[in-house]
Amino acid sequence: MRTLVSELSSRIGTEVTLGGWVHRIRDLGGVSFVVLRDRSGSVQLVFDTRPSVTLESVIRVLGTVAANEKAPGGLEVRVTTLEVLSAAEADLPFPVNQDPGKTSLEAILDNRMISLRNPAILSIFRVQATILRCFAEHLRSEGFTEIKTSKLIGTGTEGGTGLFAVEYFDAKVYLTQSPQIYKQALIASGLERVFEIGPAYRAEKHDTPRHINEFTSLDVEMAFIESEQDLMDLETRILAAMFQGIRDANARELETWKAAVPDPGLCAKIPRVSHDEAREIVTKETGKKVYEISPEGERALCDWAAKTAGIEAAFVYGYPRKSRPFYTYPAQNNRTRSFDLLFRGLEITSGSIRINRYEMLLENLKAFDLNPEGLADYLSIFRYGCPPHGGFAIGLERMTQKILGLGSVKEATLFPRDRKRTRP
Amino acid sequence: MRTLVSELSSRIGTEVTLGGWVHRIRDLGGVSFVVLRDRSGSVQLVFDTRPSVTLESVIRVLGTVAANEKAPGGLEVRVTTLEVLSAAEADLPFPVNQDPGKTSLEAILDNRMISLRNPAILSIFRVQATILRCFAEHLRSEGFTEIKTSKLIGTGTEGGTGLFAVEYFDAKVYLTQSPQIYKQALIASGLERVFEIGPAYRAEKHDTPRHINEFTSLDVEMAFIESEQDLMDLETRILAAMFQGIRDANARELETWKAAVPDPGLCAKIPRVSHDEAREIVTKETGKKVYEISPEGERALCDWAAKTAGIEAAFVYGYPRKSRPFYTYPAQNNRTRSFDLLFRGLEITSGSIRINRYEMLLENLKAFDLNPEGLADYLSIFRYGCPPHGGFAIGLERMTQKILGLGSVKEATLFPRDRKRTRP
Repeated sequence: MRTLVSELSSRIGTEVTLGGWVHRIRDLGGVSFVVLRDRSGSVQLVFDTRPSVTLESVIRVLGTVAANEKAPGGLEVRVTTLEVLSAAEADLPFPVNQDPGKTSLEAILDNRMISLRNPAILSIFRVQATILRCFAEHLRSEGFTEIKTSKLIGTGTEGGTGLFAVEYFDAKVYLTQSPQIYKQALIASGLERVFEIGPAYRAEKHDTPRHINEFTSLDVEMAFIESEQDLMDLETRILAAMFQGIRDANARELETWKAAVPDPGLCAKIPRVSHDEAREIVTKETGKKVYEISPEGERALCDWAAKTAGIEAAFVYGYPRKSRPFYTYPAQNNRTRSFDLLFRGLEITSGSIRINRYEMLLENLKAFDLNPEGLADYLSIFRYGCPPHGGFAIGLERMTQKILGLGSVKEATLFPRDRKRTRP
Repeated sequence: MRTLVSELSSRIGTEVTLGGWVHRIRDLGGVSFVVLRDRSGSVQLVFDTRPSVTLESVIRVLGTVAANEKAPGGLEVRVTTLEVLSAAEADLPFPVNQDPGKTSLEAILDNRMISLRNPAILSIFRVQATILRCFAEHLRSEGFTEIKTSKLIGTGTEGGTGLFAVEYFDAKVYLTQSPQIYKQALIASGLERVFEIGPAYRAEKHDTPRHINEFTSLDVEMAFIESEQDLMDLETRILAAMFQGIRDANARELETWKAAVPDPGLCAKIPRVSHDEAREIVTKETGKKVYEISPEGERALCDWAAKTAGIEAAFVYGYPRKSRPFYTYPAQNNRTRSFDLLFRGLEITSGSIRINRYEMLLENLKAFDLNPEGLADYLSIFRYGCPPHGGFAIGLERMTQKILGLGSVKEATLFPRDRKRTRP
């Protein structure tokens, strides 16, 4: 029966079997120390003679647990039997037991199969798993139903550009940019409140620390709401649940990255400013007159929010019509009933009230120079009764990146795909 | 403030606002009855005069809740104010308020945007959401970490056939058939226990009630196990959690489909038979000598299990080497350490112990006539220490289909993709 490292403190003086990876080897002549790593943590093993093992080999050991103030964690295991379950080659392609900050992002991603073993790198994805869990749990607690929709579609809802084509038997289809069409079909079906966690694709040639071509979209859609304020309210509750969940589950990972999540209690205080107000704030904070909110402006807004509300996040609502998709509900003065959430200087979420009136949608298609024929299935949702509704999507990798303070969104993606990277 | 239909029984005698869809209209001259449907259920509305609404229109009404023994559910709402939020066109393309058993599968899927409004059809996906929830919750309770991996890959692990090609900038990549490579990388990274819920693709030209070309794979991988029996043990615990979860959450949906889930307590008693024993059982039960287990054989095995163990499910282990992927751990006599789960006559799961030794994997690649060069990233997992491990995948749609007794897996898929169907 295998014991986990995290269980050792209650087993002092007893014999245990451990299994894990050789993380570090230190040979002091008469005695050798090996740090063993398993999914729960790591512990110092003591050998009388240098064991014949290489770094990253997977071993099983039998030994006695002993308290030792000098050992990391105050414990060590004195080994009596060693079995090598899987021997690693001597030259690792990536330094697993060192600070990953000393290695380039290229090297980390080129050697992804091995770099993921680095405990700091791997810890990113323990936090990501918490985000996934808290998102789903919170939405279920508010009566949302989880859906799984197709990622292959005949035409795009965002206008047809930026799509990856798929050779589908004798036809050509595209990878979906978002589950927009399907989320709307499902709230109109009577589920009223749905969420989906799934991949989304953007065939855009960006090469920045904030872009990837395949990402995990945390999608929400909700019917019978009055305004975009209801959506921002919902998102603040989701954020509070995520932040609380990470505080509870990932103290060690936050420490590894010297990161802190915002106080969940402050989420309800995230400032909400109109696009016009936001531009004024950016102008004031940066001293530069702005018309659009650039990445620099997004950072300035979050700094301003940190000063004024104690949380580095801001909702911006009322974006101009030309900068939002055709299904966004219009507002006065060529604005829309849309919003973004900026968090720690980055756009994390885009959302809006959607058009639920067939005639208005047809008009908007014309204004956007889109062809209603390719969207006949989508349009049928609105011909047969569709409640007022809206929704938003949170980028999982961007959220992970910003929570841990990582330099690139690619660090927060297990196997990122960018313009040049299609492996591993 | 909107009240849900499910909350009405505690509001008798008070005034409420309801919102939902016009499900049925009955005009009796002096009085009209309208059935209103919302996400929680449906209720009879009473109007003094025939309201000017069409089926499926979305309405908001103000009225008083009254007990009425003759009304469905014993309640009705006497309406004082009606507002049409979204009017539906008069000719519905699909009969929303009728038994879907009277409509062809083609008609249901061709009109998917509207047929999903049919409460019986929609209820399928409420059960599916419970399966998703229970799968994740159970695995988390056993220390598994959720992962999200890329669905775009340079080469296939199953040998390169049956892949959909994607035009990825100037390169060609493929949609993944399973997250196999990535699951193994992640258990070897030190997470040890991982699960993933995501789309999987098979470019196979099958056209049967059990095949779709895009499905949701519930994937599990687990390290430091002794044998495939450990995996079957884990799967029985997952099944018990799913069946219990559906009993608790979906009594109404089970009733709609006149379906019952197996007793969760019987999951641990699911028979486990070797492939050779399975063939003998099929031969005996069907009176036909068999060498492979055909769909007919799978049904015979489940019938046999129902008779002998009280549950219509059977694990079959030890499949021949030639019928399993190259990464399956071999056993004596050209067998493998693999298994399938058959449930109600259908293969729901495929799993195995995986090869974790580099040299054995190289030998197997040769035996399968596969090129190690295209699999260099995959092979690196095993060059640097990989614990013994195995895993399996459950097909979400097949599981949903079999739990509710649906004729085709396509009925259990929100937006199915088959050889000819790429919309909606």
